[in-house]
Amino acid sequence: MAESHLVTEWRAARDNLISADRSLRRDQHRSALSSQEEKADTIIRAIRKKEAEGIWSTQHDSILNPFPGMEFLTGKKIIEQTTLFDILLKMPKGGLLHAHLDATVDARTLLQLALETPGMHVRIADMFDPATLTSNVPEFRVLPEAEYTTQSSIDSAPSSTWVPVTAARGNFPVDGAAGFDKWALGAMMINPSEAYGTHNTLKKIWQKFMSTFRATHGLFFHLPIFEKYVRKALLSSVEDGISYVEPRVNFLAKFMTGADGQENVPHRDWLLVFDRVLRDVKNELKNQGRADELFGARIIYSTVRFITPDELKWYLQDCIAMKKEFPHLIAGFDLVGDENVLHPLKYYAEVLLQFPAMQDAAGLPEDQRIPFIFHAGETLGDGSEADDNLYDAVLLGTKRIGHGFSIVKHPKIMELCRERGICVEVCPISNEILRLTSSMPMHPLPIMLNNGLPVALCSDDPAVFGSMGLSYDYFQVLASSDLSGLMTLGELAKTASSSPALGMKTSRSL
Amino acid sequence: MAESHLVTEWRAARDNLISADRSLRRDQHRSALSSQEEKADTIIRAIRKKEAEGIWSTQHDSILNPFPGMEFLTGKKIIEQTTLFDILLKMPKGGLLHAHLDATVDARTLLQLALETPGMHVRIADMFDPATLTSNVPEFRVLPEAEYTTQSSIDSAPSSTWVPVTAARGNFPVDGAAGFDKWALGAMMINPSEAYGTHNTLKKIWQKFMSTFRATHGLFFHLPIFEKYVRKALLSSVEDGISYVEPRVNFLAKFMTGADGQENVPHRDWLLVFDRVLRDVKNELKNQGRADELFGARIIYSTVRFITPDELKWYLQDCIAMKKEFPHLIAGFDLVGDENVLHPLKYYAEVLLQFPAMQDAAGLPEDQRIPFIFHAGETLGDGSEADDNLYDAVLLGTKRIGHGFSIVKHPKIMELCRERGICVEVCPISNEILRLTSSMPMHPLPIMLNNGLPVALCSDDPAVFGSMGLSYDYFQVLASSDLSGLMTLGELAKTASSSPALGMKTSRSL
Repeated sequence: MAESHLVTEWRAARDNLISADRSLRRDQHRSALSSQEEKADTIIRAIRKKEAEGIWSTQHDSILNPFPGMEFLTGKKIIEQTTLFDILLKMPKGGLLHAHLDATVDARTLLQLALETPGMHVRIADMFDPATLTSNVPEFRVLPEAEYTTQSSIDSAPSSTWVPVTAARGNFPVDGAAGFDKWALGAMMINPSEAYGTHNTLKKIWQKFMSTFRATHGLFFHLPIFEKYVRKALLSSVEDGISYVEPRVNFLAKFMTGADGQENVPHRDWLLVFDRVLRDVKNELKNQGRADELFGARIIYSTVRFITPDELKWYLQDCIAMKKEFPHLIAGFDLVGDENVLHPLKYYAEVLLQFPAMQDAAGLPEDQRIPFIFHAGETLGDGSEADDNLYDAVLLGTKRIGHGFSIVKHPKIMELCRERGICVEVCPISNEILRLTSSMPMHPLPIMLNNGLPVALCSDDPAVFGSMGLSYDYFQVLASSDLSGLMTLGELAKTASSSPALGMKTSRSL
Repeated sequence: MAESHLVTEWRAARDNLISADRSLRRDQHRSALSSQEEKADTIIRAIRKKEAEGIWSTQHDSILNPFPGMEFLTGKKIIEQTTLFDILLKMPKGGLLHAHLDATVDARTLLQLALETPGMHVRIADMFDPATLTSNVPEFRVLPEAEYTTQSSIDSAPSSTWVPVTAARGNFPVDGAAGFDKWALGAMMINPSEAYGTHNTLKKIWQKFMSTFRATHGLFFHLPIFEKYVRKALLSSVEDGISYVEPRVNFLAKFMTGADGQENVPHRDWLLVFDRVLRDVKNELKNQGRADELFGARIIYSTVRFITPDELKWYLQDCIAMKKEFPHLIAGFDLVGDENVLHPLKYYAEVLLQFPAMQDAAGLPEDQRIPFIFHAGETLGDGSEADDNLYDAVLLGTKRIGHGFSIVKHPKIMELCRERGICVEVCPISNEILRLTSSMPMHPLPIMLNNGLPVALCSDDPAVFGSMGLSYDYFQVLASSDLSGLMTLGELAKTASSSPALGMKTSRSL
């Protein structure tokens, strides 16, 4: 029976409306799919559907209510059993544009580096007590040889006293070496009972999150480890299909420790090491005929948003000096740390506005201008200072926006980002573990995509979350929306590989 | 010291950008605030801030991580201790435009009505077992006198056998009458350990949610109780400052039971009773000099989205017949039930598109046309059938949108709603308990408001959630955003009182 005139009209209007609604999506702007692309997308969707109804709808030990996009730390074991994840492991990811370098090598590897490093010591701030072990975070440090201690165990040493790491581990009072490793790794990572139980608010989980950096600080910021760390970060990224990395490096500390345990290695030496390791890795890949697996790596110079505006001036000058010496290495400037409790961008506005003039004065050529690449809107707020950072990031001409979680609340900022190609660095797993969202179906990523924002998918702090590489984050994208498919993933990877190299814009440009 | 030119320019650009970003907000369009209004808003914001840092940051027994906007069922006790809530109780709320009538009178009152009703019986489907009591939901029913039973207790009666409710209660095997009440109320409501533990997914909590309606069905759909229920619903709404109610009534069952226990009371009689009670309540209020506390009440004729299109035709005709006889009572037509598992609007499109013609044929005058007021987008989906209901609701000319939770993913639909004044009926507490969001700071309401959508705040099923009235929902609005203040609440109340009385639009209008 022929359908009625009304139904025919409704169908046409429906198609039009849906097209109009999705017209901003960047994955809709690609030229027509090849039949092979269409087939691949269909296969991916079929697998997703099958696994949603299969493995995700099955009983799993100790996982109460599994579903695709559930809390990552609980669902990770299921993700790893899926075919979808297997496929994503093989997918080329493009660039990784938002990751804190000191959280990009898995904790177990870092711990192994610690154990192999001469002069490595460990201490705890409070007296050893098995009952408070979890909150008594280890601090690591390579000491100058003259300061080596002969303490034999962490429980016999007075609190805050350095103990050689091998002794501390070998004589660890709870389950020996295995107990030590569990404790140290637990301090470097967030576990499910913390994220979803004891620390289940943005504020509380940030406290745990910050403490993981205290636990790894003395390891990462030790030049011999730093060198190996950078190498592993690059190689493991390549392994996951990432072909360009642009990590944020925290330059807050003016020195790291050298092989001799002296805390006197300046920023310049960090970059020299980074440069050499990068060159070595690229050469090795080239020699293996894999040159196209790593296009390069650059650093976003970062400091922490608790410094004073005057201190910020020093870091901006330092950043400029580094850029002059390593123009190929410095990709941008950022301020990091919990936006919800630390200073907003407007607190630094006067100094930040001077950055272009500072670069003029330093004689930085026009094509070497250092863009801001600000964290902004990593918050649940709407009209809070952390949320308002989005306005200032855009006004200060940010090249991209780190997180931008709350951007979906701001139609005008989304419009500006769309018009200017300001890319949002979205970190789904980070957002969920830091309790900005409870699951992927609740994540604002689909709103960003439907509004046509350029989005680069990022891992943020994979070592803390146990989400090494980008495959887990890509998995979460497919769990966040029925609209998103293989073409969406392709668009994300493409965006992360071609973020426009915009220069600085100041408020004058508005 | 005078601030630099750059800073002055940045400040101006900042003000402009923020204004532009917020220009769609309807609470920004009000004429300048009076000094009294400004003062009131300031006071509310100060109290909110003080209580966020005070009572919400204090230790509470059995509440792990309290914060404003936290899970309602856990935080309710704290809400009730706040000054903010005290103030909101006194606030005039305007209309209540989205509530299922059979879930608007608190469960304890309904249970009391059950106990007072002659011939009321109760039964359970499975054999009595204290271990499975929670899932063995009571079914109530007034039997015809000839079918009264002499069963003495619920555990001695064979399963599925009716037991007089007084006997069942008096001889209840677990804690006697108090145990019975706890069990019955538990079956009629959702408790925190269900919402946030055992049933902590949209799919699972909907199963519990539906079972609460099974528990109350035989009570609500008994004419003598129905009459008292409507009266209490109206009076308790007035008590909370609600001055107009437009509940959805589920007309799926073609008959309810009458005083004699026969299931033969047709829809027409439901409306006669509703009409009489409404008139009585209005008269009583008038006699107390409180006529302006209740402007009126109308019903949204609803049936459930698991029927066939042919069955839908019957309900549409029935709705038209009711409208002809009670033009002042029928406000619209809707399909209810879990959009994520039941039929989407497009399944019924052909029939729904005929509704205008059916009304023509029935000779309904132009000014009595029955608008659709569809549930749509009560889902976490993006591109799922439940989400796509938003397209069809708009194409079918819906007057308002019930829930519209996923509308924030759809820029074009938001634009159409803004242009056409299609109001979104937002039910924050319902959304959170039904696990569409985990807390108010994660709720999409701020996105809706910042996009200028007309929003009416609604309670949905307050009896199931223990959130009687609208004060709790208004409290949650203030917890969802720093931008929202007293003027926002005023705008919401105003919108709920002045939703445009649009007629039908079909797809032709697009």
